[in-house]
Amino acid sequence: MYRTHTCGELRLEDVNKEVTLSGWVQKVRNLGGMTFIDLRDRYGITQLVLDVESRKDLSDEARKLGREYVIQVVGKVAERSNKNGKIPTGEIEILVDKFVLLNPSELPPFTIEDETDGGDELRMKYRYLDLRRSPVRSNLELRHKLGFEVRNYLNQQNFIETETPVLMKSTPEGARDFIVPSRLNPGQFYALPQSPQLFKQLLMVAGFDRYFQIVKCFRDEDLRADRQPEFTQIDCEMSFVDQQDVLGTFEGMTKHLFKVIKNLDIDYDFPQMPYSEAMKYYGSDKPDIRFEMKFVEMNELVSGCGFKVFEDAEYIGGICASGCASYSRKDLDKLTDFVKKPQIGAQGLVYVKYNTDGTFKSSVDKFFGEEELTKWVEAFDAKPGDLLLILAGAKAKTQNALCELRLEMGSRLGLRDKNKFAPLWVVDFPLLEWDEESGRYHAMHHPFTSPKKEDIDLLESKPGEVRANAYDLVINGVEIGGGSIRIHDDELQHKMFQLLGFSEEEAENQFGFLMNAFKYGAPPHGGVAFGFDRLVSLFAGLDSIRDVIAFPKNNSGRDVMNDAPSQVATSQLDELNILLKKIEK
Amino acid sequence: MYRTHTCGELRLEDVNKEVTLSGWVQKVRNLGGMTFIDLRDRYGITQLVLDVESRKDLSDEARKLGREYVIQVVGKVAERSNKNGKIPTGEIEILVDKFVLLNPSELPPFTIEDETDGGDELRMKYRYLDLRRSPVRSNLELRHKLGFEVRNYLNQQNFIETETPVLMKSTPEGARDFIVPSRLNPGQFYALPQSPQLFKQLLMVAGFDRYFQIVKCFRDEDLRADRQPEFTQIDCEMSFVDQQDVLGTFEGMTKHLFKVIKNLDIDYDFPQMPYSEAMKYYGSDKPDIRFEMKFVEMNELVSGCGFKVFEDAEYIGGICASGCASYSRKDLDKLTDFVKKPQIGAQGLVYVKYNTDGTFKSSVDKFFGEEELTKWVEAFDAKPGDLLLILAGAKAKTQNALCELRLEMGSRLGLRDKNKFAPLWVVDFPLLEWDEESGRYHAMHHPFTSPKKEDIDLLESKPGEVRANAYDLVINGVEIGGGSIRIHDDELQHKMFQLLGFSEEEAENQFGFLMNAFKYGAPPHGGVAFGFDRLVSLFAGLDSIRDVIAFPKNNSGRDVMNDAPSQVATSQLDELNILLKKIEK
Repeated sequence: MYRTHTCGELRLEDVNKEVTLSGWVQKVRNLGGMTFIDLRDRYGITQLVLDVESRKDLSDEARKLGREYVIQVVGKVAERSNKNGKIPTGEIEILVDKFVLLNPSELPPFTIEDETDGGDELRMKYRYLDLRRSPVRSNLELRHKLGFEVRNYLNQQNFIETETPVLMKSTPEGARDFIVPSRLNPGQFYALPQSPQLFKQLLMVAGFDRYFQIVKCFRDEDLRADRQPEFTQIDCEMSFVDQQDVLGTFEGMTKHLFKVIKNLDIDYDFPQMPYSEAMKYYGSDKPDIRFEMKFVEMNELVSGCGFKVFEDAEYIGGICASGCASYSRKDLDKLTDFVKKPQIGAQGLVYVKYNTDGTFKSSVDKFFGEEELTKWVEAFDAKPGDLLLILAGAKAKTQNALCELRLEMGSRLGLRDKNKFAPLWVVDFPLLEWDEESGRYHAMHHPFTSPKKEDIDLLESKPGEVRANAYDLVINGVEIGGGSIRIHDDELQHKMFQLLGFSEEEAENQFGFLMNAFKYGAPPHGGVAFGFDRLVSLFAGLDSIRDVIAFPKNNSGRDVMNDAPSQVATSQLDELNILLKKIEK
Repeated sequence: MYRTHTCGELRLEDVNKEVTLSGWVQKVRNLGGMTFIDLRDRYGITQLVLDVESRKDLSDEARKLGREYVIQVVGKVAERSNKNGKIPTGEIEILVDKFVLLNPSELPPFTIEDETDGGDELRMKYRYLDLRRSPVRSNLELRHKLGFEVRNYLNQQNFIETETPVLMKSTPEGARDFIVPSRLNPGQFYALPQSPQLFKQLLMVAGFDRYFQIVKCFRDEDLRADRQPEFTQIDCEMSFVDQQDVLGTFEGMTKHLFKVIKNLDIDYDFPQMPYSEAMKYYGSDKPDIRFEMKFVEMNELVSGCGFKVFEDAEYIGGICASGCASYSRKDLDKLTDFVKKPQIGAQGLVYVKYNTDGTFKSSVDKFFGEEELTKWVEAFDAKPGDLLLILAGAKAKTQNALCELRLEMGSRLGLRDKNKFAPLWVVDFPLLEWDEESGRYHAMHHPFTSPKKEDIDLLESKPGEVRANAYDLVINGVEIGGGSIRIHDDELQHKMFQLLGFSEEEAENQFGFLMNAFKYGAPPHGGVAFGFDRLVSLFAGLDSIRDVIAFPKNNSGRDVMNDAPSQVATSQLDELNILLKKIEK
């Protein structure tokens, strides 16, 4: 038996017990004829004491020890004179009696401590060592717990977890598929699922009533910092439900997770905000509502003012930064630089300081007098000491820039506490969005999303104004999940395909088997999919999903630890009936 | 709101409640001015009564109804005069007051009842309709429950469920990989995992201590009846354990599953049988021990007997079929035909009837007299009334044929009750097996399996005799899972690669990253992987795993429902830098 206890469980009440522990050597210190070893495993760290002075055999062994050696020790639990209040085992130590070296270690390429000296690249190459570090491993433990509790909740709500195929049919819609050549069907390919959307709808046709799955999905996209070619979804679908039923169920799930994982009671209904309102007040379909600082549109307020920047602008709007009238020239220059960054793209920043003494100081003093600025601060509901920050320009771009500025101000003012959570349903998304490039409408969510009943009349006349039964769950400005009530009517689905510019043949080729299924009594249904990686990183207080994935890939889709992808033998390609094209360097 | 209750939950105590139900029309009967409808959903069937005589509006609607129409009804719960004791809702019915047709249905291609008239192919094409049938759906519900309880148990035992990559590195060992061309790394390919073996060992190096995952695995093999290109494993690994620790943990899991799913208490330790014994007494490494009927080897017993069939045979052995001395000529001919089938391949069958009056009647009366046969029945511990069935020939082939004959007799004698479960650990597998074709040893389990300490000395001298720390869990003759204690020693692992005929370079190319990891303090570790599909089918009492998979593929790896795999656009292949070879028809 390798151990009687883990390195995290011994306490004062275990004093005098004979125990066996196994683990990794975290640290060795020699002090007055004694050797002190911090022994580490997943569960904690326990201090070992070797009396090498009087025990020749132990000292020989101890001399061999280096960082990350794996050892087994037998000894007696004793109370420490020098207690360590920072760790749960800090009141005891083990007086070592016997000692086995289980495996030596080369010197690790970086220190395996909470704070490490290893750079990103090195830690990814030696991911198995980085995972030994407690902050990294604890992210994965959190991931396990979250998955477990998601399942607990959904099981209790009668959801059936059902696995859907990974080797499925390629459809040209959506993002780019990863494809898999079939040896048994030469010239044909499977695709890896971008989501189990079609299968979960088929399961509703099959009468499964409530389906979920925590499932890997795949997108062959050019990778950005926070994208992975494979990612994990909590995929759910329900029958005989309307939008409020779905929101209620998953609001319940979210509250359950906050309760059991964070011990956080959310005792209110999540607010529901129409998409149009989110855009108007926050310039984003995923507003961070941990703080207010809503946009105030000023088009009317400054109409005919003569200030060219405003006169020429499609949109003029601003935010009120509470208590920031004291910002220095330098602060304001920094903010101006911020909004002018290419990825934000504003032309400039207008500010109005509403000083505590009631006077004004603005960057547009030449154009606007006290009377006008007084109207402005009224419109913003600003108080003396506040700062107005105003942008002007093309509507979408300016709202987007103002959204970034709002978030930046929120951060500066400490309004985006990682331990505060502000969930929000964004609802009433547009059904369609116009795509300039292809000159046709695209489904904003996907082609199976149903229009709102009261907007169906607009489908032909003003398709762009039709709202969908679609919703997103947004927490702290992060889109955690989204879904919709689906079309369950064969005819409406065909009309939708028409609107999206599919020919009958294309629709049949791509979605024929779903359309066929819909002929045999499809129930009303709808669902939602959550980004599990993102949910975990939100709970972990992390900005990137990479830190909550055990073996992530880099920006080129490579696993630098095991050097995948890699070349394969020509014989493998032969069997699959494929050839490599010459690759131009 | 589409429903206040499901179709499975109303009881006598709900009488007089106003309820709303939604579901599928299973059956419509018209009787004396009333229409009776069986309304079905996942949870059950409820009888609806429409008084179409007095309610013109209802009768109009009712006339439209066909099988599998989706409807919503509002009505009052009433006690049935004609109670149906076979279903939980059989004491009540709903007097329908209002009625909404949610979706019509075309006539389904087969009847959606427990017993259906649809053939296999049709049911696979319309899998979403087949899944509506209660026996099919209940297999998937069982699958959900089993997965949930596996997670419950392992979570309680401190296992962390950790997702490992689906897009990984291709290694030529083992079965054929499915490969995935990488667009961002032209000319290179990912492989889909045959198992997460290397990753789970890396997680042990990473100090995760206890890992599990219910995970899809992939093998591009020629498919047999009970093989699927994608299948699901319960994959587990533990650190600081020996073989008994692993067996204990997963014996616990198995008992937990039997308890919670089958309400079956298994209050004994699972027997552990060495591989050599399994082969000797059952001719199989996965013996069905629901019944005894052990092989009796007769080589010595018949040595020098003069009967050429026996004299020429490498192996002579038989089984004793209790109470079968009364078998007719016809019965025995059938058994002879059975063992002569090509896939079993015996030359013939020798029988000895040990009649109830103590006399003998055998197919070898010409060669063996009463005295010899008396010795035989003693060796078999046979009783009057028993039948000896004996095969002779090449050892492996004959043992295999005798194994099939034993199972056949077990079935005939009703000794293989699907509701009886006989779990067994088969242990002490050989480490290596000689491969005639390649002229070298292969790893019987995989190259990371450790040899038994006491056999290490034989590694160089008699590698074929080295036993491994490897084990299988066998239930009712089905291999449910298997695993091993791994090599955690860099040097021993290299020696193992040598024995298996890998060059240093090959070993480095394929397993370099694991070998590298082993340099930094790998703990002793071992694990197991269970075939989840097979476990579910065992619990469901089914012979095929196809019935416990929501959307299985056929023997050519095709999903006939959505016609995958399929051709993809040339532009997709262009982006991936691959070409199709001309396919010869």
